[in-house]
Amino acid sequence: MTDLVIRNAIVVVCDEAGTVIRDGGVAVTDGRIERIAASEELEGLAASARRVLDGSGHILMPGLINTHCHAGDSLFRGLVENLPLEPWLQTVWKAEGAILNAETSYLGSVLGFAEQLLGGVTTVMDMFWYPAETVRAARTVGMRVATGGIFFDLPGVTGESTQARIAAAESFCQEFADADDVIPAVLPHGAYTVAPDNLEKAKAIADRYGALFSTHAAETKAEQADISSRYGRSVIRHMDDLGLLGPRTILAHCVHLDDEEIAILASRGAVVSHNPLSNLKLASGVARVPDMLDAGIPVTLGTDGAISGNDLDLWLALRLAATLHKGTSGRADVVSTHQALAMVTSGGAKALGVSRKIGTLEQGKLADMIMIDLKRPHAVPVFDPVTHLVYSTAKSDVRHVFVGGEHVVENGALTRHALDDTLAAVEELAPKIAASIA
Amino acid sequence: MTDLVIRNAIVVVCDEAGTVIRDGGVAVTDGRIERIAASEELEGLAASARRVLDGSGHILMPGLINTHCHAGDSLFRGLVENLPLEPWLQTVWKAEGAILNAETSYLGSVLGFAEQLLGGVTTVMDMFWYPAETVRAARTVGMRVATGGIFFDLPGVTGESTQARIAAAESFCQEFADADDVIPAVLPHGAYTVAPDNLEKAKAIADRYGALFSTHAAETKAEQADISSRYGRSVIRHMDDLGLLGPRTILAHCVHLDDEEIAILASRGAVVSHNPLSNLKLASGVARVPDMLDAGIPVTLGTDGAISGNDLDLWLALRLAATLHKGTSGRADVVSTHQALAMVTSGGAKALGVSRKIGTLEQGKLADMIMIDLKRPHAVPVFDPVTHLVYSTAKSDVRHVFVGGEHVVENGALTRHALDDTLAAVEELAPKIAASIA
Repeated sequence: MTDLVIRNAIVVVCDEAGTVIRDGGVAVTDGRIERIAASEELEGLAASARRVLDGSGHILMPGLINTHCHAGDSLFRGLVENLPLEPWLQTVWKAEGAILNAETSYLGSVLGFAEQLLGGVTTVMDMFWYPAETVRAARTVGMRVATGGIFFDLPGVTGESTQARIAAAESFCQEFADADDVIPAVLPHGAYTVAPDNLEKAKAIADRYGALFSTHAAETKAEQADISSRYGRSVIRHMDDLGLLGPRTILAHCVHLDDEEIAILASRGAVVSHNPLSNLKLASGVARVPDMLDAGIPVTLGTDGAISGNDLDLWLALRLAATLHKGTSGRADVVSTHQALAMVTSGGAKALGVSRKIGTLEQGKLADMIMIDLKRPHAVPVFDPVTHLVYSTAKSDVRHVFVGGEHVVENGALTRHALDDTLAAVEELAPKIAASIA
Repeated sequence: MTDLVIRNAIVVVCDEAGTVIRDGGVAVTDGRIERIAASEELEGLAASARRVLDGSGHILMPGLINTHCHAGDSLFRGLVENLPLEPWLQTVWKAEGAILNAETSYLGSVLGFAEQLLGGVTTVMDMFWYPAETVRAARTVGMRVATGGIFFDLPGVTGESTQARIAAAESFCQEFADADDVIPAVLPHGAYTVAPDNLEKAKAIADRYGALFSTHAAETKAEQADISSRYGRSVIRHMDDLGLLGPRTILAHCVHLDDEEIAILASRGAVVSHNPLSNLKLASGVARVPDMLDAGIPVTLGTDGAISGNDLDLWLALRLAATLHKGTSGRADVVSTHQALAMVTSGGAKALGVSRKIGTLEQGKLADMIMIDLKRPHAVPVFDPVTHLVYSTAKSDVRHVFVGGEHVVENGALTRHALDDTLAAVEELAPKIAASIA
């Protein structure tokens, strides 16, 4: 028996062909898309379905995929301002060290995941100190998460030895090998905070378990200078020499790349997570996205953490990905709406190695879907739904979110979790957070 | 008798001192701010006020001021894409010519003003073909508007002679000389569409009636090349030679300026309306905002029209003004939150010559005020309210809007006008709009 039929929507499939069904919908059974078709073809299934939802005045599309985030850092939103990355990080680490433990990491992650799920993000790659708490937080609100063990040579928040980090990374991969809602990853912080042998060990674990590998890379000029002075080669060449690059590797930022580094990334099939807002606010620069796309690099999008952002708005990242590079290149035709939308849907799913399961609305895939309200003054008229999604949709237009068929956001509210409790707990913690850097 | 008291809010005054009252509010009588104070000091007035509103969990601040818009162009949102300004304008003008008359201009303007008022914009400078309809539309939703006669040497939408345009511009200034909700302006389109003598005539009218003067300027490299080839001098030098620049002049865009042009603008006291999103999307470039601020140019913010935008989100313009220039300059300390917020509040009011009436929350000023909901997952914690307003507030956080004390947006809905009627009328017109450029 069909669990759910949604009809009368504008369906944006997000497949390679750019399919749009002007009056269509889906049927969902056991958490998967049973059928995607014109509304009239869904009449039979609707007649016997457990639930029918009218999609009139809405776009129905896949849930968005965020490939770089630190959700727990939402606790520190707006705390450290007007600094470039390096001195900013020193202050961030001081605050994190004073505040974060398993419980506060969970709290911050629930806050960050709640914001994203309400905004239509159904899958996020998240790098944070207590990956088990990251998973627990994602499950609290009902979203998918790619995460795993952190590598960081300084003591950091948890103060673990490298040996303990290796053990934790391995056991995480083992524990979540078969989960549908958790995508195991190994997450060294970056080449400037993790020594070459530890980067190699992290990659070896990822390879052994078929997990993703993700790290910060080439975010600032200072980072490039630091790595060059230490290792006599640029960040990307350094990582390539260590064998870190491949289709299962996601590099966050990649703001400062020369032509050869772009060619290296392209030849290895490595994925870039472009984080435009964070790069602007921290004065890191503007990534060479059109050049990366021309070279065939899979470019996806991230919000980064709210401590740099200061929110986790993937729609804003999408709009910036489609506009910023036009402005800085002087070419109005770079980064098409189709390319931009793929970055947060099908491209994100490919990057996370789960494109057979999510990223488009296609029969047999998990029903990760969102519904966008078009009865808004900024959403009329709609000549092309994809143009609307890229250039004028706001996170607040997301009315319904389904993850694996479960209705996790209904009429703009979380269904699994009482958001107010989280907001109150964060507000209670706020004075202590403010005092942490005083 | 006090009409309204709002208490228990975080009050962001937007004055030069950056005053924030952590637990405060306002009393409003006859459309003006009678008192602004800590909540406890408002107890007496609250006891006898006609209405008391609890501002708990909200920021109370001045309504935003948008200094460059074409609200009526919201009819064409998303119609013309992936083109740089010049070929884009040719297509826009074709669509405008086929669709616009007094009635459709009114319809599009209501759509655009409704979007802005719901997002907390209480005053907008709007340049469009039928200024009387622009006024009618602003009054329909209840916002203030700076507008007036258009100068455009081509026939344009209305096909008027220059003589008729002059007469219309004069009679507009006369008709609205004493209005509180209309700020008269004279609005030639630009130096590339209006001949020097007509620009001078427009400025003479503005000067004669004490009206504002606003035009597009230095938006693209192509415009600079065009003006240079025609007149042997750059856009700003051309305008300066014609005597167009002064403190009552607002120049939209100013993307391409050399050092001397920046110095000219600064010495004349001319105002710049920075429109970052439009400049990015149309590949116009990135304005030299930090240099303009350093030179002392009053920089304000605009959304431009939704045909370039593709929405009218002044919060996004604010966020871009505060982040874009950090990213492109590599300096994390350019454009402070205080500077950015002033661009859409006190600075906007000064630019429009109405800083004695609006732009800050101060005793005796008109009660143009908005309330921002902080019970949102992207709004907790708030360490500094100004940082929150600049870097993480979304238009959908605006719950209440007052213009001259009138409650024009209540719980996120217009009170004067049924938005659904406008959305339906625009949707009905949409097929004809699509056909206009087919």
